[in-house]
Amino acid sequence: MTELSYALDTFYFLICGVLVMWMAAGFSMLEAGLVRSKNTAEILTKNIVLFAIACTLYLLVGYAIMYSSDAGGVLPSLGVLIGRENSVDAVLAGGDGAPYYSARADFFFQVVFVATAMSIVSGAVAERMKLWAFLAFAVVMTAFIYPVSGFWTWGGGWLATLGYFDYAGSGIVHLAGASAALAGVLVLGPRKGKYGKNGAIYAIPGANMPLATLGTLILWMGWFGFNGGSELKVSDVASANNVAQVLLNTNAAAAGGVIAALILSKLYFRKADLTMILNGAIAGLVSITADPLSPSGLGATLIGAVGGLLVMVAIVALDKLRIDDPVGAISAHGVAGIWGVLVVPVSNAGASFAAQLIGTIAIFAWVFIASLIVWLVIKAAMGVRVSEEHEYEGVDLAECGLEAYPEFTLGGNK
Amino acid sequence: MTELSYALDTFYFLICGVLVMWMAAGFSMLEAGLVRSKNTAEILTKNIVLFAIACTLYLLVGYAIMYSSDAGGVLPSLGVLIGRENSVDAVLAGGDGAPYYSARADFFFQVVFVATAMSIVSGAVAERMKLWAFLAFAVVMTAFIYPVSGFWTWGGGWLATLGYFDYAGSGIVHLAGASAALAGVLVLGPRKGKYGKNGAIYAIPGANMPLATLGTLILWMGWFGFNGGSELKVSDVASANNVAQVLLNTNAAAAGGVIAALILSKLYFRKADLTMILNGAIAGLVSITADPLSPSGLGATLIGAVGGLLVMVAIVALDKLRIDDPVGAISAHGVAGIWGVLVVPVSNAGASFAAQLIGTIAIFAWVFIASLIVWLVIKAAMGVRVSEEHEYEGVDLAECGLEAYPEFTLGGNK
Amino acid sequence: MTELSYALDTFYFLICGVLVMWMAAGFSMLEAGLVRSKNTAEILTKNIVLFAIACTLYLLVGYAIMYSSDAGGVLPSLGVLIGRENSVDAVLAGGDGAPYYSARADFFFQVVFVATAMSIVSGAVAERMKLWAFLAFAVVMTAFIYPVSGFWTWGGGWLATLGYFDYAGSGIVHLAGASAALAGVLVLGPRKGKYGKNGAIYAIPGANMPLATLGTLILWMGWFGFNGGSELKVSDVASANNVAQVLLNTNAAAAGGVIAALILSKLYFRKADLTMILNGAIAGLVSITADPLSPSGLGATLIGAVGGLLVMVAIVALDKLRIDDPVGAISAHGVAGIWGVLVVPVSNAGASFAAQLIGTIAIFAWVFIASLIVWLVIKAAMGVRVSEEHEYEGVDLAECGLEAYPEFTLGGNK
Repeated sequence: MTELSYALDTFYFLICGVLVMWMAAGFSMLEAGLVRSKNTAEILTKNIVLFAIACTLYLLVGYAIMYSSDAGGVLPSLGVLIGRENSVDAVLAGGDGAPYYSARADFFFQVVFVATAMSIVSGAVAERMKLWAFLAFAVVMTAFIYPVSGFWTWGGGWLATLGYFDYAGSGIVHLAGASAALAGVLVLGPRKGKYGKNGAIYAIPGANMPLATLGTLILWMGWFGFNGGSELKVSDVASANNVAQVLLNTNAAAAGGVIAALILSKLYFRKADLTMILNGAIAGLVSITADPLSPSGLGATLIGAVGGLLVMVAIVALDKLRIDDPVGAISAHGVAGIWGVLVVPVSNAGASFAAQLIGTIAIFAWVFIASLIVWLVIKAAMGVRVSEEHEYEGVDLAECGLEAYPEFTLGGNK
Repeated sequence: MTELSYALDTFYFLICGVLVMWMAAGFSMLEAGLVRSKNTAEILTKNIVLFAIACTLYLLVGYAIMYSSDAGGVLPSLGVLIGRENSVDAVLAGGDGAPYYSARADFFFQVVFVATAMSIVSGAVAERMKLWAFLAFAVVMTAFIYPVSGFWTWGGGWLATLGYFDYAGSGIVHLAGASAALAGVLVLGPRKGKYGKNGAIYAIPGANMPLATLGTLILWMGWFGFNGGSELKVSDVASANNVAQVLLNTNAAAAGGVIAALILSKLYFRKADLTMILNGAIAGLVSITADPLSPSGLGATLIGAVGGLLVMVAIVALDKLRIDDPVGAISAHGVAGIWGVLVVPVSNAGASFAAQLIGTIAIFAWVFIASLIVWLVIKAAMGVRVSEEHEYEGVDLAECGLEAYPEFTLGGNK
Repeated sequence: MTELSYALDTFYFLICGVLVMWMAAGFSMLEAGLVRSKNTAEILTKNIVLFAIACTLYLLVGYAIMYSSDAGGVLPSLGVLIGRENSVDAVLAGGDGAPYYSARADFFFQVVFVATAMSIVSGAVAERMKLWAFLAFAVVMTAFIYPVSGFWTWGGGWLATLGYFDYAGSGIVHLAGASAALAGVLVLGPRKGKYGKNGAIYAIPGANMPLATLGTLILWMGWFGFNGGSELKVSDVASANNVAQVLLNTNAAAAGGVIAALILSKLYFRKADLTMILNGAIAGLVSITADPLSPSGLGATLIGAVGGLLVMVAIVALDKLRIDDPVGAISAHGVAGIWGVLVVPVSNAGASFAAQLIGTIAIFAWVFIASLIVWLVIKAAMGVRVSEEHEYEGVDLAECGLEAYPEFTLGGNK
C-alpha cells in the first residue's frame, strides 16, 4: 500500500516533469515564430542548448545549492550533485519525515523548471545577442542565480520562513527569468531599426505565426505539468482534488487571458492581433501560477484576464521606454508574474500581502542585480552584441553557418 | 486503498484531459496547414479563441446544463457553474453512489470535449467567414447547443434512456461539430474561385503540408486521451484492460484509415494524396470513437479503413454539391461519425441499430437546425461573410492586422 | 490492492506508449525539416503511412513472431495475431507467473516501438526513393525482419539466453533501423548533385530548421516513454525509483549529446551548426537507451556526450565514403546505437562485453542482410529509385501530386 502510493506519486511527478520538459519546445517554437527568418536558426540553437546547459549545470551544482542549504538562511551552501535515492527501508519505515516519492523524480521535476526560467531570457535578447555570450550567461543563471533565490523560497530559506507563498513559481520562475532578461536587454540595447527619431516605434513582425501559436499551445499543455506537479502529491483524496482544481484553474486562467487580450486588442488596435492574444494566454498562465489552487474556476478566469490586460499594457509601455523585447517575454513573465504573486492573498487566507511584496522585491532585486553584473562581466570579457553587419544580415549565418529557411526567404527580406 | 484508487482514477482523468486539450493544437495546425497563407493567422486566432470561449462558457453555463438536468428528459434545466468538489467523507463512505474520482477532474475532461466539437467548425468555414461572427456562434454552441444534446446522451437524458450508445462521441462530439459546420457553410456559401461554370471545381491547395501533418499526428495522440478517458475508470483489472483495448483499437483504426485512404487515393487520383491520407487518419479515429472497446484490433482496423474510404467519397461528393469545406471537416467528422455510430451494433451486442439511428438523427437534427437558426440570426445582425475585397486580399490583414508569414509569401499568391 | 497495482502498471504502460507513438511526429518533423521543400510532402506521406503499416502488420503477424516463438531459439514460429487479454482470475491468482499488467497495453507499447525502428529508415533514403518501394519494404520490415531479432532478444530467443543486455533498444530498435537504412542507401545510391568529382561533397541544406528542431524535441519528449516504459513496472518502490533514474538519465544523455556536438561543431566548422546539435541530441538519446538505469546522472551525461561526438564524426565519415544519408539517421541511430550497446558493461556489472558485441554483430548482420535481400528483390520487381526527372523536379509532385509549400518556394529552388 505504501509502495503503491509511493509509485503513484513518483509516476505523477515524472509525467508532470515530462510535460514541463515539453515547454522547451513551446519556448523554441514561440520564439522562432516571433523573430525574423534571418535570426531563426540561432534562436532555435539557443533554446536547445540552454536546455542542455540547464540540465547539466543544475545536476552538477544548482540542485544541491537550492535544496541542501540551511533552512531559513540567505547564503547558500555550495554543494555539488544531487544526493542519493530513497531506500526502500526508509520509505516503508513511514512516519512524517519518510520519503513518499522518488528523490530522482524530484530532481527531474525541478531540473525542467530551471530550464523554463532560462528559456524566458532567450526571447527577450533575440536577434542581436552573441550566441556564446548568451550561453555563458546560461551557465551562471542555471548553476547559481536561479538556485539561490530558489533556495530562499522552495529550498526553505528566509523567504519561505517569512511566509512568501508561490505555489508553482509566478515569482520564483517567471519573474526570475524576466528579471534576468530585463538586465540583459538593458545591457544589450534595442535592435537596429526598432526605434526611430521623435519616439517613433517600428513594428518588426514575426516571420512565422503558426509556429508562434504552436509554441503557445505547447506551453499551455506543458503548464498542466508545471502547476499540476507543484501540488507535490496526488495519492490521497485531498491531494487528488487539489491537482484537479489546479488543472481546471490553469486552463481557465489561460482562457481568461486570451479573451481579455482579444478584446483589448480589438478596442486598442481595432484588430484581433494574434501576437497579443498569444501573449495574453501566456500571461494568463503566468498569473495563476502563484496560486492555481485557492481561486474558483471563475476567479482563475478573472486573474488570468487581468494578466491578459496587463501584458498588453506592459508591451506598449516597454516600447515607449525603448526597452526592446522582441517576443514580449518581460511583459508576459515579469509583469504578469508580479501580478500573480501579489493577487494571491485575495483568494488565499494563508498568504499575506506584505510577504508577497517582500518576496517579489527580493527575487527581482537578486536576479536583476546578479544578472546585470554577469552580463556586464560578459560584455567586458567577450562582448554581448553581434556586429552591425551580422545583425543586418542575420545572426543565423554568422553564428550557425546556416539559414533556417534557405529556400523560402526573398533577398529583399534581409 | 479507496483513497489511492480515487487518486489513480483522478490522475488518469486529468492526463486524458491534458491529451484532449492538446487536440486544440492539432486542429490549429491542421487547419493552418490546409488554408492559404493569406488566411492562416486568422484561422489560428479562431482556434485559440474558440478554445478560450469554450472553456469559459462551459464553466459558466454549459456543464450545468449537460450534467444537472433531469434524468431522461428532453428540455434542459438552465443551471450555472459546476457544482462542488467531492468531500473526503463522501468518498470514504463508499457504496454504489460514492464518487470515485474528482468532480473537478470530470469537469476538466468534459470541458476539453466541447472545445473539440467547436474546433471542427472552424475549418469548414475557413477563409471567408468574419472572425467575430464565428466567435459569436462559438458562444452559443459551447454554452447551449452542444450541452443540450450532451445532456440527452452523456447527461442521462432521453437518448441515454433509449439506449443510444456512443462511447466517446462519434455522434455526440464529432457529428455535432460537423452538423454545426454544415449549417455554417450553407449560410456562408463557397469561397470565391472554388467553383466555376459547368460544374468546374478548382483545387485550392493548403499552404503548409508539414503543419497539416503535424496537426493530424497531434490529433492522433490526443485521441488516446479522448477515447481512453471515456472508459471513466482505470483502477481495477477490468477497467484497465478496457482502457488498454481502447488505446489499441484507437491506434488501429487510425492506421486502417490511413491505409484505406492511401490505396483509394492511388486508385482514384493515381497519386498518394497526402491531404486525403491525413483525412483518412482522422476519419479512422472518428469512426472508432463510438465504440473503441468492443471490436478486436483487427475489427478496429477495418472500421477505421471504411471510415478512410468514406471520407474520400464524401469529400468528392460534397464538392460536386458545391458545399465548400476547405479542410474536409464535414466529411471526416460528420460522415465518418455517422458510420462510427451506426456500426456499433456489429461488434457490441448491447447496442441496437434502431437506437443508434435515432440518436444520429436526433443529434444531427438538433445541432443542424439550432445552428442554422443561430447562423441566420448572426447573419442578419452583423453579417457572416467578409467583403469580397477582404476575401481576395486575405482575412489575415483585415481581421488580425498582420500576416502569418510576412517574409515568405510572394505577391503573386494573393 | 493487486487490482490497483495492475491498473497503475497498465496505465503507466499506456502513457509511455502514447509518448512513443508521439515519436512518429518527431521523425516526421525532423525529416520534413531536413529535406528540400520539393521532397517534403512525400517524406511526410512516408512517415504517416509507415506508421500505419507498422501498426497493422505487427498486429497481424509481427507481435506473434516476436513474443510467441520458442524460448532460446533462433528460428521464429510464424504466429498471427496478438493473443488474449489477461483474465481477472489469472491476475488475482497472483504468484510469480501471474500477469501484472494488461496484455493489450503490452501490445500497444511494443507496436509503437516497431514503428520507431521503421521511421529511422525513411530519413536515410529520402529525396530519391520511390514511395511504393519504400512501403513494400516497410511491410516486410515490420512484419518479419524486426520481429525476428526482436524475438532473439526481448522475445526470449538465443541472444537473451546469451545474456545480451539492451534495456530499451539501442541495438534492438535503433541499430536495427539504421542497418535497414544502410542497406537501402547502398542499393539506392546518393542523391544527384550530392557528390562531385575529385571527392567534392556538396551540402544540401534542409528547408525548414524550426521543423527539424521541433522534431528533435518531440523525440526527446517521446524518449521518456521509450526508455521509461522499458522498466516494464512502476508499482513498487524499487521500480518507481528505477523509472525515475531512467528519465533523469535519458534527459541527461540528451543534454550531454547537445553540448558535445555544439563544442565539436564550433571547433570543427567554427559555427554552432544546428543540424549537428540536433543530431547530437538524438545520438545522446540513442546512446543511453541500451542502459538508462545503471549509470549515474553524470555518467549518463558523459555517455550521451560521447554519442554526440561520434555522430558528427560518423556523418563526416559517411560523406567521405559517399554514403548519402540526408538526415544523418545511420550515424545517429546506428553508430550511437553500437556505442550505447557496447558501453553498457562499464556501468552495469550484470552485462558482459562479449555478449554485447555478439548481440551487436548479430542484429546488424541479420537486419542488414535480410534488408539488403528485400531491397534487391524490390529493385528487381519494381525499381527503388525515382527517375532523374522526378528527382530533379522533386518527388512531391511525382508521388503525391501536390506540393508541401505551394505558395512559398521560388521557381529557382527546384
